[in-house]
Amino acid sequence: MNRSAQETSIRDTGRAFFESIRGEAPSVFNKGFWTGKVMDWAMKNEDFKVQLFRFVDVLPYLNTTDNLTRHIEEYFSGEDAEIPSVLKWGAGKSTGIIGNLAGKVMGKAIRSNIEGMARQFIVGQNTKEALKGMKKLRKDGFAFTVDLLGEATVSEEESEAYMNGYLELLDAVAGEQASWAALGGNGDLDWGYAPKVNVSVKPSALYSQSKPVDVEGSVQGILARLKPIYRKVREMNGFLCIDMEALKYKEMTLELFKRLREDPEFVDYPHLSIVLQAYLKDTDKDLDELIAWVREKNLPIGIRLVKGAYWDEETVIALQSGWPVPVWTNKAESDMSYERNSKKILENSDLIYFQCGSHNVRTISYVFETAKALDVPEDRYEFQVLYGMAEPVRKGLQNVAKRVRLYCPYGELIPGMAYLVRRLLENTANESFLRQSFAEGEEVDRLMENPEETLKRELAAKCAPEETDSKGLDAPFRNDELIDFTIPGNRHAFPEAIATVRAAKGKTYPLCIGGKDVETEKFIQSSNPADPDEVLGRICQAGQGEIDQAIAAAESALPAWRDTEPRERAEVILRAAAIMRRRQFELSAWQVLEVGKQWDQAFHDVGEAIDFMEYYARDMVRLGKPRRMGRAPGEHNQLFYQAKGIAAVISPWNFPLAISTGMVSANIVVGNPVIYKPSNLAPIIGYGLVEIFREAGLPDGVFNYCPGSSRDMGDYLVEHPKVAVISFTGSEAVGLRIQEKAAKVQPGQTHCKRVVAEMGGKNAIIVDDDADLDLAVLHILYSAFGFQGQKCSACSRVIVVEDIYDRFIERLTKAAECIKIGPSEDPANYMGPVVDASAQQKILEYIDLAAKEGTILVKRSVPEKGCYVPLTIVTDIEPQHRIAQEEIFGPVLAVMRAKDFDQAIDWANATRFALTGGVFSRSPKHLDQARREFRVGNLYLNRNNTGALVERQPFGGFKMSGVGSKTGGPDYLIQLMDPRCVTENTMRRGFTPIEEGEMWV
Amino acid sequence: MNRSAQETSIRDTGRAFFESIRGEAPSVFNKGFWTGKVMDWAMKNEDFKVQLFRFVDVLPYLNTTDNLTRHIEEYFSGEDAEIPSVLKWGAGKSTGIIGNLAGKVMGKAIRSNIEGMARQFIVGQNTKEALKGMKKLRKDGFAFTVDLLGEATVSEEESEAYMNGYLELLDAVAGEQASWAALGGNGDLDWGYAPKVNVSVKPSALYSQSKPVDVEGSVQGILARLKPIYRKVREMNGFLCIDMEALKYKEMTLELFKRLREDPEFVDYPHLSIVLQAYLKDTDKDLDELIAWVREKNLPIGIRLVKGAYWDEETVIALQSGWPVPVWTNKAESDMSYERNSKKILENSDLIYFQCGSHNVRTISYVFETAKALDVPEDRYEFQVLYGMAEPVRKGLQNVAKRVRLYCPYGELIPGMAYLVRRLLENTANESFLRQSFAEGEEVDRLMENPEETLKRELAAKCAPEETDSKGLDAPFRNDELIDFTIPGNRHAFPEAIATVRAAKGKTYPLCIGGKDVETEKFIQSSNPADPDEVLGRICQAGQGEIDQAIAAAESALPAWRDTEPRERAEVILRAAAIMRRRQFELSAWQVLEVGKQWDQAFHDVGEAIDFMEYYARDMVRLGKPRRMGRAPGEHNQLFYQAKGIAAVISPWNFPLAISTGMVSANIVVGNPVIYKPSNLAPIIGYGLVEIFREAGLPDGVFNYCPGSSRDMGDYLVEHPKVAVISFTGSEAVGLRIQEKAAKVQPGQTHCKRVVAEMGGKNAIIVDDDADLDLAVLHILYSAFGFQGQKCSACSRVIVVEDIYDRFIERLTKAAECIKIGPSEDPANYMGPVVDASAQQKILEYIDLAAKEGTILVKRSVPEKGCYVPLTIVTDIEPQHRIAQEEIFGPVLAVMRAKDFDQAIDWANATRFALTGGVFSRSPKHLDQARREFRVGNLYLNRNNTGALVERQPFGGFKMSGVGSKTGGPDYLIQLMDPRCVTENTMRRGFTPIEEGEMWV
Repeated sequence: MNRSAQETSIRDTGRAFFESIRGEAPSVFNKGFWTGKVMDWAMKNEDFKVQLFRFVDVLPYLNTTDNLTRHIEEYFSGEDAEIPSVLKWGAGKSTGIIGNLAGKVMGKAIRSNIEGMARQFIVGQNTKEALKGMKKLRKDGFAFTVDLLGEATVSEEESEAYMNGYLELLDAVAGEQASWAALGGNGDLDWGYAPKVNVSVKPSALYSQSKPVDVEGSVQGILARLKPIYRKVREMNGFLCIDMEALKYKEMTLELFKRLREDPEFVDYPHLSIVLQAYLKDTDKDLDELIAWVREKNLPIGIRLVKGAYWDEETVIALQSGWPVPVWTNKAESDMSYERNSKKILENSDLIYFQCGSHNVRTISYVFETAKALDVPEDRYEFQVLYGMAEPVRKGLQNVAKRVRLYCPYGELIPGMAYLVRRLLENTANESFLRQSFAEGEEVDRLMENPEETLKRELAAKCAPEETDSKGLDAPFRNDELIDFTIPGNRHAFPEAIATVRAAKGKTYPLCIGGKDVETEKFIQSSNPADPDEVLGRICQAGQGEIDQAIAAAESALPAWRDTEPRERAEVILRAAAIMRRRQFELSAWQVLEVGKQWDQAFHDVGEAIDFMEYYARDMVRLGKPRRMGRAPGEHNQLFYQAKGIAAVISPWNFPLAISTGMVSANIVVGNPVIYKPSNLAPIIGYGLVEIFREAGLPDGVFNYCPGSSRDMGDYLVEHPKVAVISFTGSEAVGLRIQEKAAKVQPGQTHCKRVVAEMGGKNAIIVDDDADLDLAVLHILYSAFGFQGQKCSACSRVIVVEDIYDRFIERLTKAAECIKIGPSEDPANYMGPVVDASAQQKILEYIDLAAKEGTILVKRSVPEKGCYVPLTIVTDIEPQHRIAQEEIFGPVLAVMRAKDFDQAIDWANATRFALTGGVFSRSPKHLDQARREFRVGNLYLNRNNTGALVERQPFGGFKMSGVGSKTGGPDYLIQLMDPRCVTENTMRRGFTPIEEGEMWV
Repeated sequence: MNRSAQETSIRDTGRAFFESIRGEAPSVFNKGFWTGKVMDWAMKNEDFKVQLFRFVDVLPYLNTTDNLTRHIEEYFSGEDAEIPSVLKWGAGKSTGIIGNLAGKVMGKAIRSNIEGMARQFIVGQNTKEALKGMKKLRKDGFAFTVDLLGEATVSEEESEAYMNGYLELLDAVAGEQASWAALGGNGDLDWGYAPKVNVSVKPSALYSQSKPVDVEGSVQGILARLKPIYRKVREMNGFLCIDMEALKYKEMTLELFKRLREDPEFVDYPHLSIVLQAYLKDTDKDLDELIAWVREKNLPIGIRLVKGAYWDEETVIALQSGWPVPVWTNKAESDMSYERNSKKILENSDLIYFQCGSHNVRTISYVFETAKALDVPEDRYEFQVLYGMAEPVRKGLQNVAKRVRLYCPYGELIPGMAYLVRRLLENTANESFLRQSFAEGEEVDRLMENPEETLKRELAAKCAPEETDSKGLDAPFRNDELIDFTIPGNRHAFPEAIATVRAAKGKTYPLCIGGKDVETEKFIQSSNPADPDEVLGRICQAGQGEIDQAIAAAESALPAWRDTEPRERAEVILRAAAIMRRRQFELSAWQVLEVGKQWDQAFHDVGEAIDFMEYYARDMVRLGKPRRMGRAPGEHNQLFYQAKGIAAVISPWNFPLAISTGMVSANIVVGNPVIYKPSNLAPIIGYGLVEIFREAGLPDGVFNYCPGSSRDMGDYLVEHPKVAVISFTGSEAVGLRIQEKAAKVQPGQTHCKRVVAEMGGKNAIIVDDDADLDLAVLHILYSAFGFQGQKCSACSRVIVVEDIYDRFIERLTKAAECIKIGPSEDPANYMGPVVDASAQQKILEYIDLAAKEGTILVKRSVPEKGCYVPLTIVTDIEPQHRIAQEEIFGPVLAVMRAKDFDQAIDWANATRFALTGGVFSRSPKHLDQARREFRVGNLYLNRNNTGALVERQPFGGFKMSGVGSKTGGPDYLIQLMDPRCVTENTMRRGFTPIEEGEMWV
């Protein structure tokens, strides 16, 4: 059949389809009911839609009437304090004034309406209800596949419970299914060939420690719980479909599907399918590989093809991470992909059973016509739609194809609400087929248009995108990409780079002064904290003599470098950034070995170093342009900045490249030559800068590498009269000492020193009573125990509002018990060793103190060799405790129980630090309150509080946490420069050239 | 005659006029010659015109071939290092490569061409040449009025020499005039009635100390030298015309004209005229008053009406000063004014002889026809044109009116060049009648158009101007107007305000803590430095107890004030600014009495205080808006600022209101409550802030007024653990002490203190070998001796390039000898007392030291009573001298002789200060070099180096001159705040609202 004939049949089929359901509409759009009215309003009013969806999300947590009415007010009261009448519809004549009885009545009505809406998409809240619902469906002629809601498991206990939920359901069904008549025929199988029991499973929930960097570990973890389910499914002659979730789980899902399918135990059982998502650009390739595998193994499988339900999330994450968007960005492209891939599946119907999951009549017609054209037997494909959605479509399908299966989620309302949000999104998106067909009454011809045509039309209507792929100084700043471990190359690069680095260990690192290598008699060794016997290198140590040499070198480099055009200085820094990017894996590998940083965090440390250079270089170009001040004619005022002079950069070991590079490159790009004192715990990583700046062509003397002990030369450097800037990041004690010493003018000193010091933190995260715990538990774990808590930004206090305390603590504790601890070289480990024995000792002492001041909730056992300390969670901590006040800089989390949100904020602010903070809350009012009153340098709402990105989250605190303005922000560079203003009188003998933009008559 | 008939006659006359000169063109436009070619090029090429006019201005100073060729290269070499061929025209085939022989030849040719051009407008360079020229003119049938070039006199000696120049000329003419035949008739008078000798005098040059604030003194000073000239004119039966110059001299010129006219010695001699300028909006009123005066006194006079030659300058000065533009801004309006006022003069021809000065044929025709219509006798008006200009016009006038007088400047080329620039401007301005008539060949009908029609046409073509007169926070910042002493009300307001203030003296001033008056047992007295016996008030003194109270008040005010909306805080500050503006004269008067500040400087100090408030209020609104950082979807980052906490403001006495208000209002507007310690030398002025902030409605405790002795409570305040910000302006020693003390963290302190300190200066002005000395001498005097040199910005070193040293020193010395010294109450005095006896003592010691280290050039005697010190200029100072290194803070100027500009820059930079600096140079290369290499906070090119204006010249230095960023600039407020960043994860359950401006697909 040629294309145009096929298009004609598709259109005819579609038209007939619509004809057969004329006048029907999905219940969700039925304006005679509350849901339909509200959906209608949401589609017309974007702000309301946002508030509604968010409210739906939080609703299950609103356990008290007060809480409920407060949230309704916060979400829906506009400036006139009026709840939109659409929402109150059906709630009687209550005025919506919260707090009175009528308001409470209304609140209850709204809750019940929304819960009703949610129930519409859920076949039941428990096994009993679900069974009843499934039976009813079968009575109506529909098959089902059942799915247990609750994909967010934060601990192995939760994963175990999830598995048990399935087993329980299957047990219940096992007792029932014999009593069910087969659909569309006789015998024990639906339609003559299909198992009556059909189960869908989201695999990631079966193993709480699943992560893309550890595919093998994840696959094993999931299979361990999937097999019992599959075993039971087989026992009852059922069918199992492995759902596809977010992209990060795709690789492990495909892998575990194949392993399960060819597992000797199950290899003879064919009723296993997997889901592919047409919206992923990868799907063509994935399907090809799957078909090849099926052919090679000659194993029949099922494939459910869907469009995909995480489009927004995938897009947002990719854009946030600097990755290529993995999904098709035009809806028509996804539709094309669906048609393309469904055809491929149908062409392989001998081995692949096709489960066509779509609500799109065009898509359905295409599949139907293609199957016909390819002579695919009817028992080789079926249609699936979602329970509670698109009722006219399922009815039409039943008319046309008979073999219709409904995807039936069941379970409690808390996970159910997340599912509801996805469904509402699907119904209300502008590009939704359902919205267009049933809510907006789009013409059938348009609805049945070949997506290739749609795409052409839409592309023609769009403007060409701007060309912004330039990488130079004039291109806008972009953050370095986060590492994407779904790309196998990225996973393989690490062990290779670590091996390379290990092969280079044991070298001696000289100082670099005035561009020359300087070897000293004194050395230190740098070693691997996971195995202190592994010595990585010997590092020369600067004393006062070397500092004098370095100052002299910097001083002679200063005049030329200071007066080099800002743009030219910026170009050198950009070259250095490019070199760093080229060496990103190697530089990351050094961090894994020298400071025990996990792969991703090591990579992001280098990424942040690159970001600092890319950002400061551009910001220098911005600041390097003199600013015209005032518009008066006859005078020309220019404001510009000049380098302050020689900078001492004193750097910590915890972000060994990022913080060093930030402080160093900022000084260099403004024109300040640098004496760089890396931490003696990360000197090899610091040495990378020597190589990089050399290769980038930085003039000699502008960057001088001078590791050494603080005792021998720290004060000497700080007090040196020629030093103009001291950029320091480290402990409060050292920072304050530097500030005090630098403030004293030394003989021969002709300027006041500028100290920019980033110091400690005692950072709190508040968990509000309506916090999304799925999110909060995981983000708090990462904030507190990522890189062993050795970040100034790390969370070391969690302040939990009483009402949610028990629920939160239970989940947190269980999640913390599951974390893997071991060498950071192994990506399966979540936590590694602390940086050295002295840090280990100090933290262990704090753990003893914690046991005295509070109650130890979690104290994990750790490897004996290496600088490990137990992951520790201590509760019953009060604001005055030392554990609540002192920076520990290790994996010790203090839990505090606050009576309400106000008290939580008070406690959060009640330390002498003000660095980072976090709040998990879904109360708009509390989030606003936190914005105003939670006084820290970087506050994070509903996410972890580490990992600030350059430009997006300029970083740094105040009080005792810092002196100076935020790194990676627009005010950073000007601290390192002196402003100058040149005023010219341009009038001579009454003659004044008038320039554009000047005041004139 | 009705209007339209008159218009017809005017047009006919004009057409006939043009007819009679058909084919003629002014020599300046004759493209057959160098000048015409260059003018043609300048009119087509604005950049070239600017460079050419500026080069003309500097040319007389280029005494050596090297200097000449260097300047030609700097002014005219573009990027291709090629001199425009038009300039080389007539200089043979030299390539213009400077430095070689051909280049030198070309340089000489260019000089000679430009000097030729200048000579074209000058009747002679000396008396002999002038006489010859005048004789020649008379032979051609033209009368003359002769004017001696050289209006810029900086000293009485120069003014005396100027007067003598006139007397010498008159002597020479006296011997000749008998031999001259009368024009147009017999007898001894031209045209039968006009004296043959006619002299024009620019009055301001006759008295170097003329200034608008001192009309009486100026009139007397000028008359003292004008009378001898007039006496001689009368002796030889001549005619004297008093020229009108810039607007600032107008009032004194009208006044002295009247005094001279009615002086009993001259009252019977009628040959005196004055010039009025039609471009001034005031001229209608001035003429009416003059006519009334003439009628009242019944004294015949002459009036020369001109359009006016300082249009650009008047406009620029008004716009720079914030004044209404005093001139008509449409050329047609000036033309209308000319016609209107000439008619008025002609209507009074019985008493007023009309000298019609115009090159505009429309204007001339109008005057001609109007005189006819009014039957004005021919012997009651004449026409005047400028020598060397508009030759066709003068020829046409001779044809039509016979009575034509040429205005003939004579004198040396140095002042001649300034005159040349004005003439070139007049010829080349877009709106120039000459340019339109003779260079651009505009249609005669258009040229003869009634200016009323022209105006209508032009206004119709213009867009309506934007409405920007709003005064609120949303209106752009505008500097407070400078005081305009040409407005008599402003002059009278001062003595009145001083009397009012004096009547209020002797009060007791309490502290203000938490909004309450607090009286203490300890007091100090504040007295008038010009008369230390005059006690102005008793001021309570805070001790440590009061500081504790004030800190407590500030602490309790902090939370609410910090969290008040930025806009609301800004509104309070704007209200305070409005109150201060209302009380501007009174607050200025206090400064005159309490610190001995001159009227204008006192007024501008208050103006600067107002500016700080207006600027910081608006800047807070700008900074108060959280900035969205990054464009990634799904996360929302906001960067904003928060008040640091309690600020201690420690203020100096020298800008007692401006600096106090700047530091105080900046802290208040960002949300920091203030403990304000005014200087004990200016506490009453400081108390003004209490009243103003009270009236403005600032909440109690936000501003606490705590004068006191540094010894009793200075350190205590600085070291107080609750103080977060210390804003200090004062001496280096105190500033460094504060820095050191503030850097030490005190028990209980939970933040690092921010010190913003403006400290000393040792500011140099460089006088390059091509400096315009007319400008340099006056501006250096002001920079060094304004307010007795008691400004951190004051010039205390002048570094003079060898080649100009003698000329400069001679003029500087003589100028310094003329300065009037005495109480600042009397506006005639340029310099007053220093602030107190201790300052006096210290400065006197430095003067003794100056005498040891160098050679005293000037040491003026001063009043015995009061804290006066001699104005002192010391020469032979070298960089290592203490007089060249230490801040004296008094009227002591060190002169240093540098071998070249490079050395001058080196010396200028060779102190530990870097506050202000100045350069007088007309070398584009040297100005650029200074921009780069003269490293100070505020550099001023070709103007004085004090009086930085808020926003236009953000003020402050580095090295030992300051810590922190510039006041009145865009980086100032952020120093007083802590930046915060709030990051919200806006994705919930995969649902992310996408906002405008975010990255999206």
